[in-house]
Amino acid sequence: MSGGDGGYGGESLAFLESVGARVGDSLEGGGLSGRVMPRYEGGEDGIVVLKLASGYNVAVRVGRLAGSRVAGAPARAAAPAAPARPAPAQGLPSILLLSTGGTIASRIDYVTGAVTPALDAAGLAESVPELAGIARIEPRVAMSEHSENIEPSHWELIATAVRDGSAGHGGVIVAHGTDTMQHTASYLAFALAGLPVPVVLVGAQRSSDRPSSDAAENLAAAARLIASSPGPGVLVAMHEGSSDGRVSCHRATRVRKRHTSARGAFETVGGPPAFTVTRGGIEGPSGRRVGTPGTREPRIGVDARAALLKYHPGMDASAIDGLVERGCRALVLEGTGLGHVGRALYAPISRAVEAGALVMMCSQCGDGEVNMNVYESGRELQKLGVVPLRDMLSETALVKAMWALSQEATREGLERLMLENVASEMSP
Amino acid sequence: MSGGDGGYGGESLAFLESVGARVGDSLEGGGLSGRVMPRYEGGEDGIVVLKLASGYNVAVRVGRLAGSRVAGAPARAAAPAAPARPAPAQGLPSILLLSTGGTIASRIDYVTGAVTPALDAAGLAESVPELAGIARIEPRVAMSEHSENIEPSHWELIATAVRDGSAGHGGVIVAHGTDTMQHTASYLAFALAGLPVPVVLVGAQRSSDRPSSDAAENLAAAARLIASSPGPGVLVAMHEGSSDGRVSCHRATRVRKRHTSARGAFETVGGPPAFTVTRGGIEGPSGRRVGTPGTREPRIGVDARAALLKYHPGMDASAIDGLVERGCRALVLEGTGLGHVGRALYAPISRAVEAGALVMMCSQCGDGEVNMNVYESGRELQKLGVVPLRDMLSETALVKAMWALSQEATREGLERLMLENVASEMSP
Repeated sequence: MSGGDGGYGGESLAFLESVGARVGDSLEGGGLSGRVMPRYEGGEDGIVVLKLASGYNVAVRVGRLAGSRVAGAPARAAAPAAPARPAPAQGLPSILLLSTGGTIASRIDYVTGAVTPALDAAGLAESVPELAGIARIEPRVAMSEHSENIEPSHWELIATAVRDGSAGHGGVIVAHGTDTMQHTASYLAFALAGLPVPVVLVGAQRSSDRPSSDAAENLAAAARLIASSPGPGVLVAMHEGSSDGRVSCHRATRVRKRHTSARGAFETVGGPPAFTVTRGGIEGPSGRRVGTPGTREPRIGVDARAALLKYHPGMDASAIDGLVERGCRALVLEGTGLGHVGRALYAPISRAVEAGALVMMCSQCGDGEVNMNVYESGRELQKLGVVPLRDMLSETALVKAMWALSQEATREGLERLMLENVASEMSP
Repeated sequence: MSGGDGGYGGESLAFLESVGARVGDSLEGGGLSGRVMPRYEGGEDGIVVLKLASGYNVAVRVGRLAGSRVAGAPARAAAPAAPARPAPAQGLPSILLLSTGGTIASRIDYVTGAVTPALDAAGLAESVPELAGIARIEPRVAMSEHSENIEPSHWELIATAVRDGSAGHGGVIVAHGTDTMQHTASYLAFALAGLPVPVVLVGAQRSSDRPSSDAAENLAAAARLIASSPGPGVLVAMHEGSSDGRVSCHRATRVRKRHTSARGAFETVGGPPAFTVTRGGIEGPSGRRVGTPGTREPRIGVDARAALLKYHPGMDASAIDGLVERGCRALVLEGTGLGHVGRALYAPISRAVEAGALVMMCSQCGDGEVNMNVYESGRELQKLGVVPLRDMLSETALVKAMWALSQEATREGLERLMLENVASEMSP
């Protein structure tokens, strides 16, 4: 579905054509007024979905809409049936919208309650008519996967699509599933450090066609942020809380998904988000720098021979030996407190270091810095060769290691790059 | 150091003896007024440490304290040199104080900046003179380890000491390192469900002899909570925030250490703490139940053939095979979002289930419930046999699995017990 028919057919499509309405148009009639939304997956024939002014979507029988008419200007500018590079007219900035899959590009199946990928980039742009007033959107499909299935090789694919597609645009929006959005965001921050335009990842906790969907507001906020020329850097734009009106834009290397289902699931760890997009404007920048300094060039590459292990009492210490035997070259330990693991892990850690792996420490506390000088455990682990990664988040460290392994051939080079602040992954 | 000499010797001890002062006494002289604190590890001779009314500790040369005198009543009731079962006098409740090690029972070495275990239970009670006004404290040593080195076998030891020592007391305080305090607390909640008295774990983020230590306030709050007869159940009492005056008492199965170093590092996930001890009294109970219903008896046992794996993109799927080959019988996956892992893990998960292991799912988001019915990934994983654990925290699930394995011989029994709400580990 990439045209303006929203996936409708049969009686529904015949009705829409009879009144000259397409997806995104405002329709008035039968005591209702709302924007025509794409069809629900599994939605029966003879139904049209309208988004009311309240933000809620309703499924309406076309019989009830007899005599309806299209009100106001059609919103078709945002929904090119065959996307073409927009001319630099109208004074609006140009934005590349790259879709990768995820709930933001999904629909709920109202029969089974399941959510499945259904929209491509054009359909996504089309389902958010207000985008047309913010920017000229060029939609493009990079891939279509829920993000729990995204692998490091996909990060390279997305980074390449962003780098190659960004020329001539004021910025790039990447629509992405929320499950591993923080991982992909970190990857883009490392691999695309030096890209001159902002890259904003957006997702949704509720699919685009659900009444409570956050997809439209997150997408519009990302576009408004890019239109405000915030400077280069990679950000994640997601609802601040459970109510509409405020979207937080988090630094890619400092963000975490911290709730399974809430719309305001994402948080910048240890500080405020970089920007907040509100109905009144854009607040920020706050705190840490977003973009990267100097004159870097994007360095795209990935080597997945890295692992993240979360320590727990009674942990099977030989799991570390197994990882190293199977080729792991960079191991991020998510230790307790200031960066500790139990003594039972000392011997396999020592063997991993002897085998040439770089063993690093983050904290499972999530917030705060590791400090391996305070307690004997930390000092012992440093003697074994464990490298503390300060306040780098463990997922960020894992992603950075997979990127850094593709850039550095030696353990010394790898350690140097891991400790270099490439994309504000550590406090200055 | 378990007497009243605070580890002092030489000139320092001679001075203290000359004025009749012991650790815990108020000393006035030389323009200073404060409680005598135990000696700093590595503190030079001729120095005595005083805790001023401001809460700060100062090291003072004895020459400056010439002519000092002990003011007010000595605080020795809290510091029996040879702990004996206190008689039920004075109308104060009796509390068993069990020390296991950790920062709360540690001192900072001001030469190296390192923190090492130094205090036993009696020394700990002695260093907090205000305890004498709250309860009759019976100090006892269970073990002495920083908590990153605590293993499942230690949980059994601590649980047994609590169960056997609790008779005749209004409650038990367990002084414990903060690194794995949440794990031990969860274990005690499962193994001691049915114990008729409250058990409160306390720790410190700063050692007892540091000016900024939270040890005294956390310990006093735990004693005040128990003295208020909150009913049975296991709690963790730690500073609410960075300033003094409020100590949060968290349900054992819902608490997490969320900051590496802040004094207010602990949080109840997804809700308020059960109680808050303030200078004015005790707020609560709030939200979820603390204690356990019915007429259970403590069931102490542990079987460490369980593991917790945190999913990440590019994860080495054969790590699961390795765990199962080495005997793992219960695997807690910390998945993304609503409870997902990438497709690459499906085959080894399936093999683990075939081999008889119970594979369970929690979310690495930390807050919110897993729901494996919304997305195809979740439904596929359930078909493979993965059991969703609702809103159980992953560490709590791991600890519960290690306990439940000791109680149930079959996978069916294990699954049933994992899904039974034993200690408020899941929402009702």
